[in-house]
Amino acid sequence: MRDEAPRAVTAICRALEEQIEHGLLAAGSKLPAERKLSEVFDTTRITLREALGQLEAQGLIYREERRGWFVSLPRLAYNPLVRSHFDAMVGEQGRTPSTEVIAARLMPAPAVICDLLELPALSSVIQIRRARRVDGRLVLYVEHYLNPAYFPGILDFDLTLSLTELYARQYDIHYGRVRFDMVPTALHLEAAAALKVSVGSPALRITRVNRDQHGRLIDCDIECWRHDAIHVSVEVPE
Amino acid sequence: MRDEAPRAVTAICRALEEQIEHGLLAAGSKLPAERKLSEVFDTTRITLREALGQLEAQGLIYREERRGWFVSLPRLAYNPLVRSHFDAMVGEQGRTPSTEVIAARLMPAPAVICDLLELPALSSVIQIRRARRVDGRLVLYVEHYLNPAYFPGILDFDLTLSLTELYARQYDIHYGRVRFDMVPTALHLEAAAALKVSVGSPALRITRVNRDQHGRLIDCDIECWRHDAIHVSVEVPE
Repeated sequence: MRDEAPRAVTAICRALEEQIEHGLLAAGSKLPAERKLSEVFDTTRITLREALGQLEAQGLIYREERRGWFVSLPRLAYNPLVRSHFDAMVGEQGRTPSTEVIAARLMPAPAVICDLLELPALSSVIQIRRARRVDGRLVLYVEHYLNPAYFPGILDFDLTLSLTELYARQYDIHYGRVRFDMVPTALHLEAAAALKVSVGSPALRITRVNRDQHGRLIDCDIECWRHDAIHVSVEVPE
Repeated sequence: MRDEAPRAVTAICRALEEQIEHGLLAAGSKLPAERKLSEVFDTTRITLREALGQLEAQGLIYREERRGWFVSLPRLAYNPLVRSHFDAMVGEQGRTPSTEVIAARLMPAPAVICDLLELPALSSVIQIRRARRVDGRLVLYVEHYLNPAYFPGILDFDLTLSLTELYARQYDIHYGRVRFDMVPTALHLEAAAALKVSVGSPALRITRVNRDQHGRLIDCDIECWRHDAIHVSVEVPE
């Protein structure tokens, strides 16, 4: 048994991977019930679940509570060198973006935000928390922190729309230099709740620190992406 | 209980995070035994383990079989825009690199490698599998695939050294354009065995496709990094 189980798991993974790659199991489609899959692969529920867990960790399938297992949608391509924003990036890839505002307020800046935006101690900062979907699926929880000096009255606007476009239209502020920092990590409580998954689920956290056309530090975003929702592409010239 | 447990987990995580951030628990140091920690936090082993699991998923601590829990070493900064290689990158950050060759051979090119290197069907390719350490800790499993047309006799050299430098010295080949693709994923069997962790452990997979100074596709690397070993930084100019 000891030697058989890992091989059985690998065999099930390979079989399902192949079916998915060849489009026999289409993106978004539901897998048969676990009981049925155990029969198909002539294996125990324990071995089957281990295989499904590995495919989930690879981002090929995902589970919805009480609904079962589904084939993941294609990952969004995220290219930090191409100036874009969520709505444009998603739209250009033939997918449909949507955004919900969870909360937006002026608050005392946490220490880490003071560091990133080079604000003095005890500064205030505008925090906007949003959840974003691609084709109806929750993929991104983001906290935006804005230096309030540059965005008077911004909390009165419709914050489900692109902040990039709002900055340009209302404040004549455009993104200039940007610093990205990407870390594979796990979802904390707030992010997990917003994305409706378990605390500790794997995620890619992307911290963006943004300057405007005058070189001023205007805002930073802390993005928590589902681990299976994006791949990051960077093309480096010679 | 239902409401208390998640709060207790969060409280333990915050307390340990704070101790680590303030250097009271130094990088590389061992945490007290779980029994002792349960006493300190006046909690059950189940709750304690959930908290430790979350910190592990965040990359703050890691477990070694039979040895216990340790505070993670600082993440390596990985900047795709800065031309470098493993030994140089690690050394520049004041850390010590080392490399083991697991295997090196000429083999039929897998379909995915034919795609990446634009090789015709049924081509041969040189595969070099290596495991790399930082300060003695296994952090990276990498598969290099080289177009054999450009590297005659390379299997006779010492492949624990930098391939970048070997290419330059022996073949007068230098990296030109590079394409990076980064995906949060889970370790497959070979990578997990090389890094001595469980199959399915979280990882960042970085696929590099490299051209030389003449624009020829010379090789590609499939790197599997421990999720807690690096952060990727990209600075984008205006």
